[in-house]
Amino acid sequence: MITRRQLIDQIKQKKSFLCVGLDTDIDKIPEFLKQYPDPVFEFNKRIIDATKDLCVAYKPNSAFYESYGVKGLQSLVATSKYLPQDTLNIIDAKRGDIGNTSDKYARAFFDEATSGMSFDAITVTPYMGNDSVTPYLKYEGRWVIILALTSSVGSKDFQYLNTGDDYLYEAVIKKANTWAGADRIMYVVGATKSTEFTNIRKYAPDNFLLVPGVGAQGGSLQDFCQYGMTKDCGLLVNASRSIIYAGSDDDFADAAREEAKKLQQQMAEELEKAQII
Amino acid sequence: MITRRQLIDQIKQKKSFLCVGLDTDIDKIPEFLKQYPDPVFEFNKRIIDATKDLCVAYKPNSAFYESYGVKGLQSLVATSKYLPQDTLNIIDAKRGDIGNTSDKYARAFFDEATSGMSFDAITVTPYMGNDSVTPYLKYEGRWVIILALTSSVGSKDFQYLNTGDDYLYEAVIKKANTWAGADRIMYVVGATKSTEFTNIRKYAPDNFLLVPGVGAQGGSLQDFCQYGMTKDCGLLVNASRSIIYAGSDDDFADAAREEAKKLQQQMAEELEKAQII
Repeated sequence: MITRRQLIDQIKQKKSFLCVGLDTDIDKIPEFLKQYPDPVFEFNKRIIDATKDLCVAYKPNSAFYESYGVKGLQSLVATSKYLPQDTLNIIDAKRGDIGNTSDKYARAFFDEATSGMSFDAITVTPYMGNDSVTPYLKYEGRWVIILALTSSVGSKDFQYLNTGDDYLYEAVIKKANTWAGADRIMYVVGATKSTEFTNIRKYAPDNFLLVPGVGAQGGSLQDFCQYGMTKDCGLLVNASRSIIYAGSDDDFADAAREEAKKLQQQMAEELEKAQII
Repeated sequence: MITRRQLIDQIKQKKSFLCVGLDTDIDKIPEFLKQYPDPVFEFNKRIIDATKDLCVAYKPNSAFYESYGVKGLQSLVATSKYLPQDTLNIIDAKRGDIGNTSDKYARAFFDEATSGMSFDAITVTPYMGNDSVTPYLKYEGRWVIILALTSSVGSKDFQYLNTGDDYLYEAVIKKANTWAGADRIMYVVGATKSTEFTNIRKYAPDNFLLVPGVGAQGGSLQDFCQYGMTKDCGLLVNASRSIIYAGSDDDFADAAREEAKKLQQQMAEELEKAQII
């Protein structure tokens, strides 16, 4: 588990606010790993070893593991146990259900004794309202990361609906801020326009924002920082495919490190520019 | 897989539109089952055997299985393989993510070759818009069941936001109707007021509605039917705890059958009243 204070310290120490997305697909990993009993875990392990001094968070996407059934879940459990203690370890699960069901999902991802997994944070979808979020907050020290504005094509369908004074995504942030503070809640903000960050910072001045859109999904780091950065950094910028599939051969971990290093160096510049380090 | 036509035929034949929710919790099942290698599956198997002529759908809630990690998923896989061919087998997973991730979730629940599971339908959450729904529709003959109006306390937080002419839940139905027809899309409607059904039928005159609120969660079957039933029935009414935990001893399956039978008989009356049978 990692507190807001510890996260900020990690950011300053590593000069990075990089989150490495472990969207690991067995069809895309180097051939030679397939000789191992759990190739997906073997891949993740080497990616983690190669990047852990350059990033402050890891984020396995649950769907990639679930698509392989029991075998996939075994890889996810093994990965969760291997994640470093000093990074914020996020399960990207986008769950959202009524209270008693959210309790079960919280056990699935936070309660190692029953599920074998203990993540620090979970992504959740807000449609069902407070009982789809608050059960996770009962686990002391864990984080929920609520979908606000996503970078998907479909984000236009509902997130930009006008609900009186606010777009729906703004109404979500305003309401969720009443459930817990910036020490427990982050928001997913897949902004494609930098002005959206300015807007979101009006409602979430202190919350960390998880930004999924750098690397393969596009998006300019400088823009995110200019409009979204706070005095405590306040950003976690995720890159998945651009890092983990940077190489496709025996040297894939080195190639991943190179890519992570490039992003880390750009991030260090932004942190210096903002006088955070 | 089961088409709309086949579902309607099943309803007429069994005189039932009951969905049995398999929200199975190992802490709530009879003690004697714990001697079996997979007690949760053993429980589900007996519930299925005892109710399959009285219901037209089954709905395991994924969270209950996920909370037990790999063991839980093994129970879910075994249950999915045991579900009857002639019922609509729904995985209640409430997933919702961007396109390429939804593809993975679709494999997790529809593609037996990779995940071991092949459900007929999945519940999804609409917040991320069309790419969180349409990937499931690529699987011919499968259904998506989209959260519209839920019975949760938190439903008030966003689903009732006014978005111009419509509440958000109405806007969801209107938009989702452009993605596919009533032969592929159903809606979750946890109406607590019967007038809401009238309202929803304005926008979804033909779609089947999955109603979670009978039994332990309360809700009057007569009201649902008066305001929500169509000439093809158009309703699947779920009951979970009130059926599966009706008994707690060796005779739990008989007790479950009794409860299911009571609901089936009430449903037969409603179907007769509406001259569907």
